[in-house]
Parts: sequence; structure tokens; C-alpha cells
Amino acid sequence: MPLIDRNTRGVYVIAATPFADDGALDLGSIDTLVDAYVEAGCDGMTILGVMGEAPKLSPEESRAAIARFMARAPKDFGTIVGVSAPGTDNLVRLAHSAMEAGAAGVMVAPIPGLALEAALVGYYAQVCEALGPDVPVVFQDYPQLTGVKVAASTILRLTRDYPQIVMLKHEDCPGLSKLQAVREGSGTADTPRLSILCGNGGIYLPQELQRGADGAMTGFAWPEMLVDVCRLHHAGKVDEAEDLFDAWLPLIRHEQQPGIGIALRKEALKRRGAIKSAKIRAPGPSLSAADLAELTRLIARTEARVAAIGGRTGGKLAA
Amino acid sequence: MPLIDRNTRGVYVIAATPFADDGALDLGSIDTLVDAYVEAGCDGMTILGVMGEAPKLSPEESRAAIARFMARAPKDFGTIVGVSAPGTDNLVRLAHSAMEAGAAGVMVAPIPGLALEAALVGYYAQVCEALGPDVPVVFQDYPQLTGVKVAASTILRLTRDYPQIVMLKHEDCPGLSKLQAVREGSGTADTPRLSILCGNGGIYLPQELQRGADGAMTGFAWPEMLVDVCRLHHAGKVDEAEDLFDAWLPLIRHEQQPGIGIALRKEALKRRGAIKSAKIRAPGPSLSAADLAELTRLIARTEARVAAIGGRTGGKLAA
Amino acid sequence: MPLIDRNTRGVYVIAATPFADDGALDLGSIDTLVDAYVEAGCDGMTILGVMGEAPKLSPEESRAAIARFMARAPKDFGTIVGVSAPGTDNLVRLAHSAMEAGAAGVMVAPIPGLALEAALVGYYAQVCEALGPDVPVVFQDYPQLTGVKVAASTILRLTRDYPQIVMLKHEDCPGLSKLQAVREGSGTADTPRLSILCGNGGIYLPQELQRGADGAMTGFAWPEMLVDVCRLHHAGKVDEAEDLFDAWLPLIRHEQQPGIGIALRKEALKRRGAIKSAKIRAPGPSLSAADLAELTRLIARTEARVAAIGGRTGGKLAA
Amino acid sequence: MPLIDRNTRGVYVIAATPFADDGALDLGSIDTLVDAYVEAGCDGMTILGVMGEAPKLSPEESRAAIARFMARAPKDFGTIVGVSAPGTDNLVRLAHSAMEAGAAGVMVAPIPGLALEAALVGYYAQVCEALGPDVPVVFQDYPQLTGVKVAASTILRLTRDYPQIVMLKHEDCPGLSKLQAVREGSGTADTPRLSILCGNGGIYLPQELQRGADGAMTGFAWPEMLVDVCRLHHAGKVDEAEDLFDAWLPLIRHEQQPGIGIALRKEALKRRGAIKSAKIRAPGPSLSAADLAELTRLIARTEARVAAIGGRTGGKLAA
Repeated sequence: MPLIDRNTRGVYVIAATPFADDGALDLGSIDTLVDAYVEAGCDGMTILGVMGEAPKLSPEESRAAIARFMARAPKDFGTIVGVSAPGTDNLVRLAHSAMEAGAAGVMVAPIPGLALEAALVGYYAQVCEALGPDVPVVFQDYPQLTGVKVAASTILRLTRDYPQIVMLKHEDCPGLSKLQAVREGSGTADTPRLSILCGNGGIYLPQELQRGADGAMTGFAWPEMLVDVCRLHHAGKVDEAEDLFDAWLPLIRHEQQPGIGIALRKEALKRRGAIKSAKIRAPGPSLSAADLAELTRLIARTEARVAAIGGRTGGKLAA
Repeated sequence: MPLIDRNTRGVYVIAATPFADDGALDLGSIDTLVDAYVEAGCDGMTILGVMGEAPKLSPEESRAAIARFMARAPKDFGTIVGVSAPGTDNLVRLAHSAMEAGAAGVMVAPIPGLALEAALVGYYAQVCEALGPDVPVVFQDYPQLTGVKVAASTILRLTRDYPQIVMLKHEDCPGLSKLQAVREGSGTADTPRLSILCGNGGIYLPQELQRGADGAMTGFAWPEMLVDVCRLHHAGKVDEAEDLFDAWLPLIRHEQQPGIGIALRKEALKRRGAIKSAKIRAPGPSLSAADLAELTRLIARTEARVAAIGGRTGGKLAA
Repeated sequence: MPLIDRNTRGVYVIAATPFADDGALDLGSIDTLVDAYVEAGCDGMTILGVMGEAPKLSPEESRAAIARFMARAPKDFGTIVGVSAPGTDNLVRLAHSAMEAGAAGVMVAPIPGLALEAALVGYYAQVCEALGPDVPVVFQDYPQLTGVKVAASTILRLTRDYPQIVMLKHEDCPGLSKLQAVREGSGTADTPRLSILCGNGGIYLPQELQRGADGAMTGFAWPEMLVDVCRLHHAGKVDEAEDLFDAWLPLIRHEQQPGIGIALRKEALKRRGAIKSAKIRAPGPSLSAADLAELTRLIARTEARVAAIGGRTGGKLAA
Repeated sequence: MPLIDRNTRGVYVIAATPFADDGALDLGSIDTLVDAYVEAGCDGMTILGVMGEAPKLSPEESRAAIARFMARAPKDFGTIVGVSAPGTDNLVRLAHSAMEAGAAGVMVAPIPGLALEAALVGYYAQVCEALGPDVPVVFQDYPQLTGVKVAASTILRLTRDYPQIVMLKHEDCPGLSKLQAVREGSGTADTPRLSILCGNGGIYLPQELQRGADGAMTGFAWPEMLVDVCRLHHAGKVDEAEDLFDAWLPLIRHEQQPGIGIALRKEALKRRGAIKSAKIRAPGPSLSAADLAELTRLIARTEARVAAIGGRTGGKLAA
């Protein structure tokens, strides 16, 4: 499979982890989920993300899930593996086994507590050294989760110092000015270009693209929205991209709710036929009848609006 | 002026605090700002909110601002005063002087550290006792700011035990199920009704109204959106309310960005002629040329879309 | 091995995880470490604690470490296994394998986010149900780490409702009044007795014993201090217990420093011959020459003071 | 009165704010409290500290308290005024009025949110500019409270760039290596000397002095401990200083408990005759009978131990 690099562009969707109603890992749904992502037009996917249900897998399940995701992905579909871990040994072990299995790169968030630039840079130095130079690394900048705030200048320093840090997953908020600073400060005489994909459920995606992002790396139950918004934008149809996005925005905003968002996303993926069950492993949120009816209403409204402007509406949807 | 009560409904807009370009409190802009809120159709306003720039006022300025807001407000326009303070003495002093000046009620958030229900209830017991029974109280439930997570059952307990706690300012997130639990648990045989107004920049307003909220208490540079969405909804035009909201959503989402949102709101209020300067007192965020252009673009797109469905677009707007 | 129960008393030392200088898990040092804990007079130990280096072990290492700790422990030496995990399935799996291997019980901390009593109680209900009634559970109350503040009344409720929750690991701070409330509220007509062991590096141990604690569950490089203080106290020699503790206090305070404490503890355990290397797996703190000299000074001063009042000073110490 | 400078040394005790039993500000007790601090041998005091009860004063009370503290202090007794505030205008106004009243300097903590070095440095640049060059500033480094972690290199940068930043109040934890880095990096060819006084209730005072601190700036109900430990240390009697400290340590540790510490301190100051009432303004902690008895026991034990090694024991103590 292809490796990510400094010019990677497009959509790497954050993949859900499907379980059966009894809680077992649902390998069959991994296949249908990957198919759905491919059909939607994603360029790749990111598995074992830091917020997902990956920490609820046993080590054996984790290995089985990675293998299945990889096996189903087409040759030109890049799989990034989230490898953040409290210990560097485990991080490196997982990264190496992912790369051997054909991953396109690995994603590493700062461990909590790296508040000072020197400590942060030291951590990535140590991680890059331990990974070896051939493993492409995504720097995940997600202070809401890690508690680690990182300056644009620090990201540029990492970009200069570590050739293998080729991509930023941008999720700081407010983050538009910072994204712009990283974009303008990289690809210059002294700092190589950095690929920038955006998270945060995509809720600022048009603004991020307009500031220079290369695409999205986030979860959303309708990844075709991410794909089409990015394609339109990159084709120079900036207004059309934003029009399409705005039509989806009520649902984007709804699915981005903290705490309950993952349950809403899985429910929608189930309704679309991408996975068999919306099961969340304990402990986790559950949806009430009111939550389900509200989601139905929001989907219907959004689908109608997207269809009205000629957008893809996802099909295979059953209430 | 009228007092808030358990049946209060509508929009109490969170008022900005206007400064001149040199940083001085701009009393003239308080007048025009109140006029704009009234013209938009707000039922009232909330001043000295917990997130605003109130803590940057000197005691003298604070008194002058309250007096000016009150003096400009029409007779039937309710002014709620945020009185949260580290010490109960200061809280009570401010509350009493606000009520004497004609406030409709006061808003009290839990002080940080009240993690346990017994401590929280004890705090409100103490505050209500010190305020006396004639001061209507809004319970501000804003865990993202206070760090205090409150159960729906605790809010209902306060509703039962303290007749003067007549309103909930709802800003927990995810909060739709909780809002519904408070709505369904109040106005029952054993628990009196509680008025529920919603914050969080209004980003979930249609869903909140559909779950039983009575209106909004939040800031937005186009308060007519809040007013019209609530009026349509309460007139039974649930879909139209949500259609209007959705048209505004790109701007709502943009203004709700943490950190920079207050600067965007003041800039928009200035452009609309509601205040003379977008000045934020130090320390505070500032807007870059890119931020300003982006705002211009978002306003133009949104105005066009709102106008297309026959919504009020605010007028007096100069880029 | 014996199971913990509601009357368990004494010292269950939090065990370090020994690594060789090259970072490999050092099984030989597990043996010598267990021997040192036994020789010090501990009643048991707790392994895979929530703050330790357990998350830095691979799954295979984790299993090997548990097996080795268990195998070396004498028959009457109770081993409690920390099983807190983001997913309940993993928690239960680890707990069952620990009990089958002969553990005395398991320790479960609330997962972050359980701020409301109902959610907390629901979580323990679910965990107890999944564990089955035969697995004794320690409720770890450590809000500084989990962010979850728990009322004494909630702990008593869990004590009543779940016969298998037999022990509280007390680490709230300030916590002396709370400890007293739990002690006085349990062992009553309606609530069974609860064993209470204390953490926080032992820094309030005499006060905790005087308020009714049954002993200590914490790490300290001189566990004989914990043992002798508890024994003296339980023998009615309250003043002597506190005198001995006070003599050790400079070192207790020093080792309890956040962030660097685990490095100081391992260095001291190495000097005492209990483990071969003070290695901390990356990422982790390291000790400077000044840190090492300071530790040497503090140990010498403390040993002299403890010896002067006839206390055990640990022996086998080499600077 | 004398201004603080880069060579200031000794003890600047954090002053309590005394209230009468009915909650009124107790100006008479300010006099006796200042007298007690002077008699203990303190070099100065710090008033309106960031953790104290200063935020519970009305603006008028705040002015009255400052005036009274200043009026009672002897000519050569330096008073530092805590001026941290959410708005720079209020900060500067308070600082200037404090300096006009004869303060020795002002103390400024970072406002929460200044996670990045550039933002932090920008904030102090702005504050220093607004204060003018004649106001000596203490940089308060207290990440446990502010959430702002600051590198030693950033403190040294501020030391170089702002001649008026003359003192560091050190309260980071773990902080001994950082203190040493600041000490070794200042007073060099390129960076002027920085005075370093230590907080955190004094719990690491001997180690901090041994790493190069100039003294203490913290609260403790027996300030003579702080004074005598610093004097002995600075007289070269390093071991005697630490012996004296260790004798006091059980009480230091007890008073340093978060949440309840201020109540314990006021109770002890009352018993010593330094203030008339131990009143804490609402909301605040209160002491149970068990808390009071425990304090009595700890005081008695500590006084005996301090007396046994010839230390000052404070006198005027009534149980």
C-alpha cells in the first residue's frame, strides 16, 4: 500500500470499530464498513484512533481488527494506524507491526503532561528514533483530549527536524489561525511542506480548506460529504464545496456532540447498512427513543436538503 | 420591571460589554446595543454573564454599566444580572443592588469545587437564605466552565426545595436528554414547573425547543435569529423554525468557537451598528485580516440564504 | 491464597514493576522485590496499580509479571490486582484471570467522566454483575487521578448494595473527615463494615489510623515503616506509631512528589537491593546528579533519626 | 518602604485576611497579625494572594485591608501585593494604587489559558508596559492553580527581557530541578540574577534552599519556622536548618492539605492570639470537633519536639 507523505491530500476517514449485539468484535462488519468507505470515495482510513473504542479491545481482538481492516482495503487505499500509548515500547511495537502489515503511516498524539516545548520535542525525538526513519508519522494535535497545547512554531520545528513527520492532524480549537500559520510556515525555504488533514468532526472543514488544509481526517457517518466537499474545493469550486457542507451542517453538528457522538455515528452507519449493529461496548452511552427519533428527523431533513442541491445522499438508509 | 418566573419564555440575550477603541467603557454603545436587542424582539437580556468581559470592569465601571443597561431597557424588558462570585457576601451585595435597580432576577452558577450533590445543594441553600425569598434565581448549569456536573435529579430537587429558583440556564453538553429529564420531571405533582432557557451559543436550539425548552439565553450577534426561531417554534411552526435556524447555522457555529467567539461577535455587532467599536479589553483575542475576511464571507453567504427563505437578515450591515 | 474481606487489616504495599537497564521486564527482580515486601512484614501487595508502569507492559509481559508476582508470594500473602480499564470486557477478563491465578481481590477505580452518583453506581453495578459475586472488589477513591469526586454516602451505598465491595482504598484529599464518615457509617445496623486502607504515599497515615483506617495500601521504598506504624497503632501504641512515622516523614514527603516520585522510589529500592535497576520505561522521569545526592542525604538523615528511636532502618542500603 | 529587588532574601509571609465571627473584616486583627509576623522575624509579607480570601472582599474592604496592612507594617518591612486579575486594566490600577501606598512590589500570576510561551511572554510584555518600569514584579509560577506550565528557559527569558521582573515565586511541583535550573541560569553573563522565594506551604523548604532559593513566600501559622530555617541555612548551618524544619514537618504537612488548610491556619493563628476569630467567609470549609482535637494533638506533639531541639515554639498558644 502507498505511504503517506508531505503532499498527501484528501480524506482519511476515522474508522469505527464494529461490534455485534452481544459485544463480540464483528469482523464481517469491518468488511462492509471498509467497502462503504471505499465506495464513498475516501482515500484512506485511520484505525485505532485515540477517542474510539480501540482501548476496549483485547490485545488479540486488536490484532484481528487491524488485520481485517488491512485485508479488506484496496491496494491504493492508505491505512493509518493510531499508535499512541502510555509507553514508548508498546507504541513502537504496534507501529512496527502495523507497517509490516502494510500501513501507510502511524499517528502519534503527545502523551498528557508534555506541557513544555522541550519535553514535547524530546518525546517526538525519542519516538522517531525508536520507530526508525522509514515509518511516516502523523502528529495529532488534539489539546482538548491530551491537555497539551502546541504552538505552530513547535509544529514547524518538528517538521524541520524530523523528515518522517509528514502530516499534521489538526484538531486544535480555535484553530483556523494556527492552521494558517502552519500552512504558511511550511513549504518554505527552510521548512519542508507538511500535509494537513483536519479533525473535529469536520465542523470547520470549508474554513480549514480555505486556510490551506489538504483534506479531512475525521469520523462522520456520511463520509461522502467529506469526500465531495474536499473534491469540490480542490477543483476550485470553493463556493459549491461550502454550499454542500452547509447543507450537511445540521447533522455534522449533531454527530459532533461530545459523549454521545459515537453512539449517533454507529446508529447512522447501521441504518446505512455499513455495519450490522450500533453496539457500543460498556461503559458507553446509549440512545433513548427520543434520541433515535431526533436522529431520524435530522437525517430526513438533511438528506432532502442535500438532494435539493444535487449532492450525494448516501442511499441504503432505513429508519 | 417584570420578574422572571417559572413560566418565563422567549429570548434573554447575553449582552456584550461595549468598550471604546481606547478601552474606556462605552456607555453610549450600551444604549444602542440595548436598542438593537429590543428591536430584534428579545424579551430581555442578561448582563455581567460569567464568560463575558464583566471581570475586566472596575467596581465603578460595573455599577455604571448596570445602571446604564437598566436605564435604557424598556419597562417590560427583563434584565437578569449574573452575580456569581467567589464569596457569598459579594454575590448577595450585587444581587440586592441589582434587584433594587429593577432587575428581573439574578443568575448564579455553582462555584468550582462543588462536585458533590450535598455540597451543591448546601451552597444554593446558603445563597437563597442570604438573598431572601424575593429574589428570583436562575440556576446556571455550565459544567464546561465550572467543572461542576449536576444531575437532572439535583436540579429537580433544587426546584422543589427553593421556590425562588425559577429558571434553569441549560448549557450542559451533551445535554438534550438531561434537558428532557428536567422538563418531564418538573411541572408534576411533586415538583413545580421550571423555566428552561438554553445557552451554548444556541447551537442546539431547535433540538432543545423540541425537547421542551422555553427559549434561549445566549449571545449571538444576530439576536433576531434566536427570537424568530423561538417564536416560530412556539407558534407550532416547528419545521419552519428549524429551517430558519439551519440557514443561520454556519454563522452560529463560527461565532461559537471558544476563545475567539467573543471577538467575532463584537466585530459583527460593530458592523451592524449596534456598538461603536469591537474593542476587547486585554488580555483577549484579536482578529487577523484573514479572520475578518472570513467573517465577511460567512455573513454574506448566510444573509443571502436567510433572505432566500424570507428570514430577517438584520440590516445595517457594513463590510 | 486468602481473599480480602470487610475486616482485612494491615499493609498491602503497591508493588513497583522492575525493569532491567535495557528496559526488559526483570522477572528476577520481581522475586527479590516480593521477598523484600514479605520480609518487611507486609500482609500483601497490590500489583498493576493505576499510576504505576503497568500500562507500559505488553500484554504478554503483563501476564508474565502477574504470574511471577503470584508465584513468589507466600501462601498467606494476599495479592490484589488493579484491573481498572477503559472497557468493562477487558476489566472482567483481567479480573477473572487474576482470581484464577490466586489473587486475593481486584481493585477498580471509577472511569473518568462518572461525575454523577447515578452513573457511578450504575458503573459498579455493571462491573459487579459482570465479575460475578465471588470476586472481592476494592473501591479505589482517587479523585486527583480519575477526576471523579465521590461522596461518603455514595461509598456507603455501594457498601450496602454490593456485598463483594469489601474494601475502600482511600486517597481523596483532603480526606480525613470523609474517611471518618465512612468508618462511622459502616459497621452499623444497616451498613456492613468496610475495610479501609489508605494511599497517598502514606503521608497522612497516623491521622488516618486515628480516624479509623485499617491500614495502608501505598507504595514506599521502606515498607517496614508502613508495617511498623500500623502494628504499633493497632497494638494501642498510638503515640509511638506517630513518633516512628514522624521520623520517616521527610523521606515520605520527598518520595510523594508527583511526577518524580516513582523514579525516587525505584532508586531507593535498587539501593536497598530489592531490585537490580532503577530503570523507568520511556517516557518517564530521570534523576539528575543533584537529585541522587539529595536522596542520599535524605536517606542518611532519616535512617539516623529512625535508628535513634529504635526503629527498623531497612538495612542493605548502599549509596 | 523598601522595594524588592533581584537580591531580596528571607521570608515574605503570605498574610491571612482576618474576619470577625460575624464575617465583618476585622481591621484590629490585621494589626495584631502584622505584629505577629514582625515579631516572628519576617522580612515582609504578601497580601491579597491568589488563593486566599481576597476575592471575597468587597472593593471597599479590599482598599481598607490594604491600607491597614500597610499602615501597621514597620518602615523596613516590605509588603508585596498580589494583583493578578482577569483584566489588565484592573491589574494595573490595583498595582499602581498599591505602589503609591508604599508597596515593595506586586505579584502577577499568568492568567489561565497562556499555555504557549509566546502568549505568556506577550502577556508579561503587555503587563510590564502598562505598569511602567518602576514597579517591581514577582512572577508567580503556580501551575497547579493557573494550569499554566512554564519552562525554566521561559522564566530566564523574562528575567533578561524585563528588568522589573526581579523575583520568582516558585510553586511548581515537582520543582526542585526547575528551581536549580533557574538559579544556575540566572546571575550569569547574559542573564541577571533573579530572587527566588518558595511557596507550597514550605513543604520542600530545606531542599529548595539547598538548591539555591533565597527564602520563602508562603503561609504558615508559625512563621518563625520559616524565618529560623532560612536564617540557619543562610548562616551556613544547613543541617541545623533542616533539623528544625523536620521537627515542624508534621504540622507543615497537615496545614498544607488542600481545601481545609486555610481553616487550619486561621484556627492556629487564633489560638496563638494573632487574630481574634478563625472565621472563613462563605463558601468555605469548617472544622469538625475531630479536626480541632487532631490539630491540638499535632500542635502539642510538634511544640514538644521543636522545644526539645531548642527551637522557638511560638508562645501565646492556648488549646
